[in-house]
Amino acid sequence: MYTDTAETLESAVDAGRNHTLRAAGIAAPALRATIDTLGSRIRPIVGYHFGWLDLAGQPTDQGSGKMIRAALTVLAAEACGGDVQRAVCGAVAVELVHNFSLLHDDVMDGDLERRGRPTVWATLGVPAAILAGDVLLARGCAILEGDSEHRTWATELLTETIATLAEGQMADVAFEHRTTISLEEALAVSEAKTAALLSCACELGAGLSGGGAEARERLAKFGWHLGMAFQLVDDVLGIWGDPAATGKPAGSDLRNRKKSIPVAAAMNGTGAAAEELAAIYRGAEPLTDDMADRAAKLIESAGGRAWTEAEIDRHRRGAAAQLEALGLTEEQRRPLLALADYVAFRNH
Amino acid sequence: MYTDTAETLESAVDAGRNHTLRAAGIAAPALRATIDTLGSRIRPIVGYHFGWLDLAGQPTDQGSGKMIRAALTVLAAEACGGDVQRAVCGAVAVELVHNFSLLHDDVMDGDLERRGRPTVWATLGVPAAILAGDVLLARGCAILEGDSEHRTWATELLTETIATLAEGQMADVAFEHRTTISLEEALAVSEAKTAALLSCACELGAGLSGGGAEARERLAKFGWHLGMAFQLVDDVLGIWGDPAATGKPAGSDLRNRKKSIPVAAAMNGTGAAAEELAAIYRGAEPLTDDMADRAAKLIESAGGRAWTEAEIDRHRRGAAAQLEALGLTEEQRRPLLALADYVAFRNH
Repeated sequence: MYTDTAETLESAVDAGRNHTLRAAGIAAPALRATIDTLGSRIRPIVGYHFGWLDLAGQPTDQGSGKMIRAALTVLAAEACGGDVQRAVCGAVAVELVHNFSLLHDDVMDGDLERRGRPTVWATLGVPAAILAGDVLLARGCAILEGDSEHRTWATELLTETIATLAEGQMADVAFEHRTTISLEEALAVSEAKTAALLSCACELGAGLSGGGAEARERLAKFGWHLGMAFQLVDDVLGIWGDPAATGKPAGSDLRNRKKSIPVAAAMNGTGAAAEELAAIYRGAEPLTDDMADRAAKLIESAGGRAWTEAEIDRHRRGAAAQLEALGLTEEQRRPLLALADYVAFRNH
Repeated sequence: MYTDTAETLESAVDAGRNHTLRAAGIAAPALRATIDTLGSRIRPIVGYHFGWLDLAGQPTDQGSGKMIRAALTVLAAEACGGDVQRAVCGAVAVELVHNFSLLHDDVMDGDLERRGRPTVWATLGVPAAILAGDVLLARGCAILEGDSEHRTWATELLTETIATLAEGQMADVAFEHRTTISLEEALAVSEAKTAALLSCACELGAGLSGGGAEARERLAKFGWHLGMAFQLVDDVLGIWGDPAATGKPAGSDLRNRKKSIPVAAAMNGTGAAAEELAAIYRGAEPLTDDMADRAAKLIESAGGRAWTEAEIDRHRRGAAAQLEALGLTEEQRRPLLALADYVAFRNH
């Protein structure tokens, strides 16, 4: 597709970012309009969460994150040559569902920061985060439009996806109390917590805009591969990411002994590095800087990084193959492929 | 309607309970079927919450509460002479939404017991309660059926009601940090947290079963009055209820300085009793038995009990008047009126 030089990669990532911004922009007004209808106690909480309002309820000049899921719905509709406007409700729905899950997950995980600001529960309290998430979830499930057949199909797909998100988060929480998990378990959590919603976003775009069964199925698989790549890149950046680019301390995932996929891939291998890594993960105290450095090196020695990076490439190619199999022209494929490159090669 | 003797009251309450049981029984299989489709990690949590499963996941011989909201939807459909089967999805939806709100409210309020057993968050953890609530909420919003027009109307009504529940809970949480609230504020919380969903349950029953605009509006108002009566009775029982009947310690609402409606009605009055009550509520420590006894007497002296009991009667009559204005026959009205008596005169 392109030669693997830093310059070509950078321009691929730029193209993907631009397509994401443009596509998200098509859904953004409908998202804002939905949130503007919320009640007087919940609306300011949601506005703060999205970054549109500060704690005093005053508008900020900040955006609302990348809205990559909404962008995927719009781009999938465009790729299938369908009626993009009919897919906008799907784009809004997946973005509402994604943000509901962020609000609730932050409570459960005790995360203090998101998008460079204190999380809602940490600054406005647990009830604010739970209730704002509830309202976004309800809106997301109710906002899908279309004729009776499309609406039933889309609502069922979204509800199933929400159930999958919940199963994945419940598994993730359960695994926190264990010192080790299998690679299969780690992959299953990523499938449920990340790939399912990206897959749903693409499938909604294809189906709501008028695409048939094959388009829906291919785009769903495209989104699934993209979601897996997205999570695997997150996991790599969580260990080896440049703090200047990610905005997180180096090795941030290791300090709390997060059992991400590179860790599971390394720990489930054999050899001295795998054993030393497992021993570090059996400890109870948070890792020191030195221990985190050592763990990162052990994951590399045990092959966890190489395995994960090969998987990212496999999923990027697997995503592309779905679009080709669907018989889309190069022009139809280009925006989604650029987004896949953006996801696979981003540094934050 | 009947002479106010203990015996007649008891038989009215019995009749209402029987109608509730019968109507809830019509919706119960669909509710169980919905919950049976949930995923393997969330289903046992929901089963425990409803009382169908113990903590080991084994079936119990317990029921699932009164299901008064589901019963209202079915009874409203019956009263309007509509197709009851078409309203069953609405009955399931309101019951799912009610139970989602219980799961989440218990987390926010720190409540340890529900239906005589430890709450989900207290025994299975906060993530279990949040995620199980999320899944019930999503299912509730997606389960409404009917032709496009009915489905859009019903989904919008339910989503608005969920938003109202969230606004009410947010207000309730905010008021906890205050030493006093106005009677209007206390009533607004009850409208949002209780009356809105009972009103929604009745309106869904009328509308989904084929009732027209007037039937929907009258049944919505019937449910609203019933909901207000329901909450006011709860508040009276929380202060003066017989512990043997309610299963809660005497004056349980007073120990934690709950600003329920009888308290707000008394505190917002004038005179020595109102002032002494306000002084007690300005304290910080939980109330002792003696202080709770004293507070209960002060609420009576300041007129809080009499005002609340008059309101219960007013709402019971207001509910009945809606059915009469709709022109229902006595036979059509009887089950809903019995349920109103059950709500107004129950002792637990």
